[in-house]
Parts: sequence; structure tokens; C-alpha cells
Amino acid sequence: MGTHGSQERQDYGSGRLSNTAGGIAVERLRSIIERVERLEEERKALTADIGDIFVEAKSAGFDVKVVRQIIRLRKRQPAEVEAEETLLAIYRQALGM
Amino acid sequence: MGTHGSQERQDYGSGRLSNTAGGIAVERLRSIIERVERLEEERKALTADIGDIFVEAKSAGFDVKVVRQIIRLRKRQPAEVEAEETLLAIYRQALGM
Amino acid sequence: MGTHGSQERQDYGSGRLSNTAGGIAVERLRSIIERVERLEEERKALTADIGDIFVEAKSAGFDVKVVRQIIRLRKRQPAEVEAEETLLAIYRQALGM
Amino acid sequence: MGTHGSQERQDYGSGRLSNTAGGIAVERLRSIIERVERLEEERKALTADIGDIFVEAKSAGFDVKVVRQIIRLRKRQPAEVEAEETLLAIYRQALGM
Repeated sequence: MGTHGSQERQDYGSGRLSNTAGGIAVERLRSIIERVERLEEERKALTADIGDIFVEAKSAGFDVKVVRQIIRLRKRQPAEVEAEETLLAIYRQALGM
Repeated sequence: MGTHGSQERQDYGSGRLSNTAGGIAVERLRSIIERVERLEEERKALTADIGDIFVEAKSAGFDVKVVRQIIRLRKRQPAEVEAEETLLAIYRQALGM
Repeated sequence: MGTHGSQERQDYGSGRLSNTAGGIAVERLRSIIERVERLEEERKALTADIGDIFVEAKSAGFDVKVVRQIIRLRKRQPAEVEAEETLLAIYRQALGM
Repeated sequence: MGTHGSQERQDYGSGRLSNTAGGIAVERLRSIIERVERLEEERKALTADIGDIFVEAKSAGFDVKVVRQIIRLRKRQPAEVEAEETLLAIYRQALGM
């Protein structure tokens, strides 16, 4: 049981929990926060791992910017990519680019 | 008259304009692009001006991070800010922060 | 004269200005804030204007996503774009994309 | 062995690997891409899990925006937070906020 956003009611929710401080179910709040923090830490580690792979790619001579483009492209439907690239070519040609 | 997004129809729009290249109303496209580019340049200049003011603020001894917080707060309804800060104080106290 | 970030010194800056509150050169702070707010308003208006142009482009039948790509490309050196696109084609072909 | 960014040299790197296509060490590139994709998937799942916890927090009556503020605060040094909040209070009072 947490705290109602705007208007501050004494019981702060559907029923009073035993260990409340200022009407806050402290342990529930703490558990929510700590679980988010753990997952954020894991996510941060994954981001670092991804970064390491790009460092590896660069040292292997690959162009990281282009590798990222490939990864973005692989997330999309080929037909959609093709239609977009066709249109881009038409616009570029029309503009003399 | 532009180009239909996905499926490529010869007339590309409600009626053929005179100066089309590959069915593209080139001048219309160019005008759209150039107008966006001009506005983006103006916006970039404004961002630089804002940056200069913060440099000035810093050299005058103000804490830029706090000044930014003040500016964010001034954009919000005081009652909303107050309710949020009350709740934050309750949660922090409950968590022993 | 503003307030020193971390350590709170009584005179808050190089010299005491007349109208200070809690050691803060209030009018200087207010002027800084109001100038930033005015420029942010102008910037917001420009962003809205840019948005309007894209709405216009869409209603004219242009593909807004592709128009944005064109605008990004026009900001770059043609030779750099070409080298990147050559590499992208090589990688895509190598991967059978 | 990948492909050198700008200038296209035939051997594309320190030594020719067996399975190259257009000079690209295809399997090395594929492996790099697939490893990044796997980690990105894991990261996406973690982000979804974090989102679920905030949904849980909301249904438990907690104010998610304030919970996020708590999590941000817990990442910082208490002394730094306190100094910033002291300054914010001084500025707000000086400005009559």
C-alpha cells in the first residue's frame, strides 16, 4: 500500500500495513526500488558489454557506424527498407544529390 | 505534389506539376527542405544563445544545474510541484534518506 | 554575483550587489532566467513551425521520413556519405541482405 | 578482419581470412552483429521488466514519478544532493517561488 499521488489520505491505500512510516508501506517501497536498481545495474552491464563488442569490431577493422546501421536494418522488414531506399533515391536524383 | 510513400504511382499525387523529375515536384520538395533547414539553423543559433547565457550565469557565480532546475520548476503548476515534493519528503523519510 | 556551487560563502561572488536576498543577486538571477525562458519559447515556436512544414510535406504527398533523411544527408560531406554507403553495400552483400 | 572505414584496400585488415566476400570476414562480422543483437534483446527484456515493476508500484498506490526521483537520488552522494537542494531553496526564496 503506497501513497495516493495528489491528495494525502491518512491510510494511504486500500488497507493499513503493519510497518508503515508516514503511511508508507516502507518495505514494499524498498523492495520495488531495490528490484528496479538491480535490473538497472544488469542493463548497465549489458550496455557496457555491447560497447565492448563494438570496440572489438573496430579493432577488427569494421566501421562501427556502418555495423550499427546494419543492425538497425536487420530489425526492419526488407520490403519496407527497399521502398524507403527507392524513394530516397528518387528524391536525391530529383534534387541532384 | 510529392511521391506516395509505399506504392510508386506514376503521377505521384493529385495532379502532375510541370517541373517534375521522376514524378517528383522538385521545386516543392526543395522549398520544403530549404525552409526546414533555415528554421533548423535559427533553432541551432537559439540553442547556442541559451548556452551563452548559462556560461554567463556560471561566470557570475550561479550554479547552472540549479538554475536549470528553477527554469523547469517555473514551467509547472506550483500546487503540482508542492504535492510532488511533499510525497518525495514522505518517501525519503520512510526510507531513512 | 551568484552563489558558489558547493561551498556556501557569505558574499556569494566577487562583490556584494545592492539587492541581494540570502546573498543572491536576485535581479541578475531573474534576468538570466527570463532571458533563457524567452529564447526557449522562441525555440519551441521554431520547432512547431518545423513540424508544420512536415505536416505540409505529408499532405503534399511527400514521405516525411525520407525528407528528414535528405535533410540529414545535406548536412554531411558528399564524399563521406558515399564512402559510408559503399561500405554499407559491401557489408549487406557479404551478409546476404 | 573487417573493412577499413574510408579507403577501400583489397585485404581489408591484418590478414586474409578464408571466407571473405568482397574482402569482408563475413563470419566475424555476422558473429559481432548477432552477439550485439542478443545483448540488445536481453536489454530490451530488462527494460520491460523495469516497466512491469513500475506498473506494480502504481497499482500499489505509489507515485511512479516520485519513486523514479528516489532512485535517481540514491545514485548520488547525499552531501552533493544536500548542497544542491540548499542552493535550490536559496534561489527559490530569492525569486519568491
